[in-house]
Amino acid sequence: MSTVLGSSVADGSTGGVDGLDAIMARGGRRLRERMGRTELHLERVTAGAGAPLASHANSTITAGGKRLRPLLVLLAAESAGGPPDTVEGEERLVRASVAVELVHSATLVHDDLIDGAQLRRGRPTVAASAGPLLAVATGDLLFSRAFAELARNQDAEQLRALSEASSALAAGELLQREDAYASHVGLERYLRRCELKTAALFEAACRLGVLSARDGSIRLAEALGTFARRIGLAFQMLDDVLDVSGPVERTGKSRGRDLLDGTVTLPFILAREREPELSAFDLSALENPAQAEALCERIAATGALDQAREQALTVVEQAKAALLTVLSDGRSALLDMVADAVVERYR
Amino acid sequence: MSTVLGSSVADGSTGGVDGLDAIMARGGRRLRERMGRTELHLERVTAGAGAPLASHANSTITAGGKRLRPLLVLLAAESAGGPPDTVEGEERLVRASVAVELVHSATLVHDDLIDGAQLRRGRPTVAASAGPLLAVATGDLLFSRAFAELARNQDAEQLRALSEASSALAAGELLQREDAYASHVGLERYLRRCELKTAALFEAACRLGVLSARDGSIRLAEALGTFARRIGLAFQMLDDVLDVSGPVERTGKSRGRDLLDGTVTLPFILAREREPELSAFDLSALENPAQAEALCERIAATGALDQAREQALTVVEQAKAALLTVLSDGRSALLDMVADAVVERYR
Repeated sequence: MSTVLGSSVADGSTGGVDGLDAIMARGGRRLRERMGRTELHLERVTAGAGAPLASHANSTITAGGKRLRPLLVLLAAESAGGPPDTVEGEERLVRASVAVELVHSATLVHDDLIDGAQLRRGRPTVAASAGPLLAVATGDLLFSRAFAELARNQDAEQLRALSEASSALAAGELLQREDAYASHVGLERYLRRCELKTAALFEAACRLGVLSARDGSIRLAEALGTFARRIGLAFQMLDDVLDVSGPVERTGKSRGRDLLDGTVTLPFILAREREPELSAFDLSALENPAQAEALCERIAATGALDQAREQALTVVEQAKAALLTVLSDGRSALLDMVADAVVERYR
Repeated sequence: MSTVLGSSVADGSTGGVDGLDAIMARGGRRLRERMGRTELHLERVTAGAGAPLASHANSTITAGGKRLRPLLVLLAAESAGGPPDTVEGEERLVRASVAVELVHSATLVHDDLIDGAQLRRGRPTVAASAGPLLAVATGDLLFSRAFAELARNQDAEQLRALSEASSALAAGELLQREDAYASHVGLERYLRRCELKTAALFEAACRLGVLSARDGSIRLAEALGTFARRIGLAFQMLDDVLDVSGPVERTGKSRGRDLLDGTVTLPFILAREREPELSAFDLSALENPAQAEALCERIAATGALDQAREQALTVVEQAKAALLTVLSDGRSALLDMVADAVVERYR
């Protein structure tokens, strides 16, 4: 689970979410314009901290990525009738979109430091290029700017949603550290970690979108938040399958990297249940990538990967069904496409 | 400047702010009760993240400290008529007080990591006891909880004040890193760093207090914010004097530690102006504590320490004068005592 979402979504080397281009095309000019303003705003926020002060923050942001979370903000808003038809209404929406991506970027900078990652989106990570100390401060700055931007929306409910999500992200990172090499970690604890590290920010993205929209209501924010949480969960489950399945040409890293880092993921948990001999396997015994690859082979041989994929698909179907209870087909179409795009990338 | 405020205020070894006890005594039962609830709330917030998840966050918070920033929140509120006379009014004030201390604690955890500090408040730092990775995540969690707590106040203006301050803290840490060993750093840049790293959160504390109070107004928030910024600035200037003046029995560390870390502080800047031979001195030439102590002697010999102390006293007097323009003597008395306490510790 060391490749947190951003890298996988953003980085061609680990397989982009191709379906997102189709969504942008179908979303029309308005969606593309809002996404364009999100980009400009992101760049301005980080550049605005004053050169050379913000160079690392800026390079993190401008390195790009698929902007899956901003997309969720914008689509959720559109499904709730779009923002109020004013300049301020549009700006509020873009600020929400920007804030979510800033929190995500802050997390990437700190996660890369924690995971010792060298590359992100094909460029050296802040930790690798500028050292751990600057990586801490750069992440803190991105984090702070997220809240400063969102505060301009003057909506305490939005700030609550984002701060709960960022608390979850940090708690998830702590949980992952606590559980490192703890081979006994089970399904419940794994799912809890996914909720914290991944699903919570997806949920916040949809909540913020709804709260920025004309027809936004608490009920709709709840419902779309639930949808997004499930999509985020499926996303992480499938990401963890990819760590075991490879191939390396697609992921840009050797198989079993997360296992080698001591992270107990879904395929390993399921494989232990299916194959008693694996249940006593101690991850701290893995000494090198070759041993991790060998463990991946054993996991794959149990059929655990197919089972994990199926579980993820079930979660996505649940998510889509939940959408239908609150949105008409017309309004849910693009969000459905996001759900499908998340799955599509792992087929 | 590596001993950021908390340590100096909190840690007996570097000289506590003795005057604070007198303020607590004079502030009466209500102040002590609010401070007590702040403590309980701080402990609950961090413990609430679930054991053993939050043990590091919790140990950071419960290690104590003089709680100078919460005190500013509470006193600023009282000078603006106190919180509304309801349970919720009291709770809102305490949440503001808690949020400021959480941001401060988050900064301490990350600063200790960046500065390589081993001890804080007489206990091992999170970075020293649990490693850099947990220190990053623990700081992030404290940071996130600050905003999550404050969001419960449903006041976007309060969140704006806190997020601007936390942006400033991160920008200040980046600036300090950028400027490390850059001996040409002058007074203007030094003051800018103090504003970011120290004064901004003092300002936010007073702003939040006023915004939680019955008679709070934007004008009063501005005025008390200006007062607090100056107090914060003086606090940092005097802290930097202490790094050069020692003595070690009082500071718990060898003299010139900041200089050895490459941090250009006020005494060094002033000494360069007073003694041409020092103007070419390159901090990166300092190789060990003994050389740093020798540089401290040279700085002291120029009279720069007295000049720095005088400048700080002038800033404090300006702060107190600014208070009088918006508050009657009765309402400003305790805040004046905080200003005096900041100075008192360096006499």
